[in-house]
Amino acid sequence: MAKKIIVQKYGGSSVANTERIINVAKRVASYKSKGYDVVVVVSALGDTTDELLELASKITKSPPERELDMLISTGEQISVALLAMALHKFGKEAISFTGAQVGIITDSSHTKARIIDVNAKKIRQELAKGKIVVVAGFQGVNMDQEITTLGRGGSDLTAVALAKVLGAGVCEIYTDVDGVYTADPRLVKNAKKLDKVSYEEMLELASLGSQVLQARSVEVASKFNIPLHIRSSFSDKEGTLITKEVKKMEDVLVSGVTLNKTESKVTVCDVPDKPGIAARIFTELAKANVNIDMIIQNVSRTGYTDVSFTVVAGDFNKTLKLMKRVVKEIGAADVIFDKDIAKVSVVGIGMRSHSGVAATMFKTLAAGKINIEMISTSEIKISCVVRKKKGEEAVKTLHKAFNLGR
Amino acid sequence: MAKKIIVQKYGGSSVANTERIINVAKRVASYKSKGYDVVVVVSALGDTTDELLELASKITKSPPERELDMLISTGEQISVALLAMALHKFGKEAISFTGAQVGIITDSSHTKARIIDVNAKKIRQELAKGKIVVVAGFQGVNMDQEITTLGRGGSDLTAVALAKVLGAGVCEIYTDVDGVYTADPRLVKNAKKLDKVSYEEMLELASLGSQVLQARSVEVASKFNIPLHIRSSFSDKEGTLITKEVKKMEDVLVSGVTLNKTESKVTVCDVPDKPGIAARIFTELAKANVNIDMIIQNVSRTGYTDVSFTVVAGDFNKTLKLMKRVVKEIGAADVIFDKDIAKVSVVGIGMRSHSGVAATMFKTLAAGKINIEMISTSEIKISCVVRKKKGEEAVKTLHKAFNLGR
Repeated sequence: MAKKIIVQKYGGSSVANTERIINVAKRVASYKSKGYDVVVVVSALGDTTDELLELASKITKSPPERELDMLISTGEQISVALLAMALHKFGKEAISFTGAQVGIITDSSHTKARIIDVNAKKIRQELAKGKIVVVAGFQGVNMDQEITTLGRGGSDLTAVALAKVLGAGVCEIYTDVDGVYTADPRLVKNAKKLDKVSYEEMLELASLGSQVLQARSVEVASKFNIPLHIRSSFSDKEGTLITKEVKKMEDVLVSGVTLNKTESKVTVCDVPDKPGIAARIFTELAKANVNIDMIIQNVSRTGYTDVSFTVVAGDFNKTLKLMKRVVKEIGAADVIFDKDIAKVSVVGIGMRSHSGVAATMFKTLAAGKINIEMISTSEIKISCVVRKKKGEEAVKTLHKAFNLGR
Repeated sequence: MAKKIIVQKYGGSSVANTERIINVAKRVASYKSKGYDVVVVVSALGDTTDELLELASKITKSPPERELDMLISTGEQISVALLAMALHKFGKEAISFTGAQVGIITDSSHTKARIIDVNAKKIRQELAKGKIVVVAGFQGVNMDQEITTLGRGGSDLTAVALAKVLGAGVCEIYTDVDGVYTADPRLVKNAKKLDKVSYEEMLELASLGSQVLQARSVEVASKFNIPLHIRSSFSDKEGTLITKEVKKMEDVLVSGVTLNKTESKVTVCDVPDKPGIAARIFTELAKANVNIDMIIQNVSRTGYTDVSFTVVAGDFNKTLKLMKRVVKEIGAADVIFDKDIAKVSVVGIGMRSHSGVAATMFKTLAAGKINIEMISTSEIKISCVVRKKKGEEAVKTLHKAFNLGR
């Protein structure tokens, strides 16, 4: 009879040194002793990936991406070997695999490959022998047996993909925080850990700043309905369970408040209000691989309008250069940049069926004399851009207004 | 028309840091520019392998060897990726491969695997595209796609094996010394670099202490008649060419003098002089994997004889324990150990056809008041055991007596 399979993923901070690896081994061993078939996905030790990238940058400013993957994939290979050794120390049979060995097949987009297939045969064989299977996260192999990597946070994706093909009951994501909070606990003293959030809420919470989990992983988990359990590798407390939406969740109006201070605002002034002009701006940005977040265009009353959008800090210089050219080409007046902004968002599935969240948010900010500069809304999220120095105050006051600290 | 293929192997000291990797890339690129098809085999950066083993030892005293191979094979993977990047920097198309990717098939003896086949197809394909091929040394893969390593010095073996299957004209071994010398230059001021030595001489020179090249690699090169060129990655000077014996070599009586201070002498006293007794001793030692070097048994005149042999330092304690038991079982009187010895050897193909080398050696040592405690000879080598503190003096005086400094 097949045992219950559990997939556990341990991030870089959970395996930052040999002591922590031994702790992880103890936890993994305890699950094996409880009767689970355990598959473990591991990230590179602590800062290993950054250290390897640093080595590469000392050699050349523009390394071929194929060779970068060859280089950084060694980080996870080191982790899995060490964890397998630690498990043997505790008397558990364990076997480590690279992404290539275990059949994680990806496309050929080096450094940001997408998983196209996972061959679970080898893992099943080893589980059947009673072994704990330790798989290198973040990496795969293309059809030509070239090593690929899945991009930042890719180990989460490896774990979710394995949970899917193995039919695991749950995919545990171990990290250095013990769950998802109603707000950043460093900022809001009485922030509360959420026991349960929906995939959709998690997507908004993650992309808005509570970055404990890669968005792509949540999407895939959602698509295949795999419960994710975000928890700490340093404690035994239950963390936050991420599942599909359940009826009860709708009672909760707002799940969390997030803050993002890493974006800049760009405004293209006096854009001729003709069909195709906005498309032109954002096509150019997309071609340059610039990641746009909020986009606002006001109603035009003069034949000219202002188009504003926010970009992440890393894309700022590229955007600046690009927009100076585009402004001329489309016949706009000017482009204005503002790095001094913060984006504050409230997220909650309850918004779908309840009105009044936006009103409460705007009223609360106004009462706190915090000026709103841009507004953008989705079905389950409302975001406001405010002055950067007002960002933290905005989060605190909203957290209180929605009674999240209870 | 196929170009001339050259295989170059760079040891750990040649790629100890990014600066040196860039230097290696320059050298490799220059060979490509000269019109060669270049295949490069690289070891792990400097002390990487030792650092990885240190990590493993912090986790457990007895790591499974399969996992050790998984761990330490990352060292070479890092080197090849970085070297390929550096070659791109110099405008050369290069592609890196792990042992697995390039089809270096080994048996399953983890940490000391033997190459059983090399599939050169992938390398030929990439060379045909005009690329420089960079291969991770020291590693391979068994039939089950498990990563294996070839043991210390295994990168030399990778290079020789590739030179063989690719039909390379020469296999260059780059290291931190610029060739093979008539004696250790740190010891003998006027030691001379040898332009050419035979495989056999190199085997005796290497195993006797001039450890620039792994013995197994020399054996394989000899078997397939692949010229090896030992040279420095820090200069452009020609090094030492190791080839099959050529007529001219016989004119040179002695090629070099070597010193080995890492062995200990073991004497089993008053062994009953009956058939099978010596076999018994050395069978027990072989079973325990003890590496024996010299063996001396004197003629018996009393029905009892003494059997002496030397062992390397690492095997000393094991041998001590074992022999105390064996002495009783075979009815010998006692076993005596002596760690305070040095072995001095003269090596030269010329000995085969010229007599008098032994006589000169013994006379020279006697004139220097250096007592000879054991003698052992082969076709092209004579070794004498002397007091350890007399070892260096013995080398100097022999180097002079055979006129090697010229």
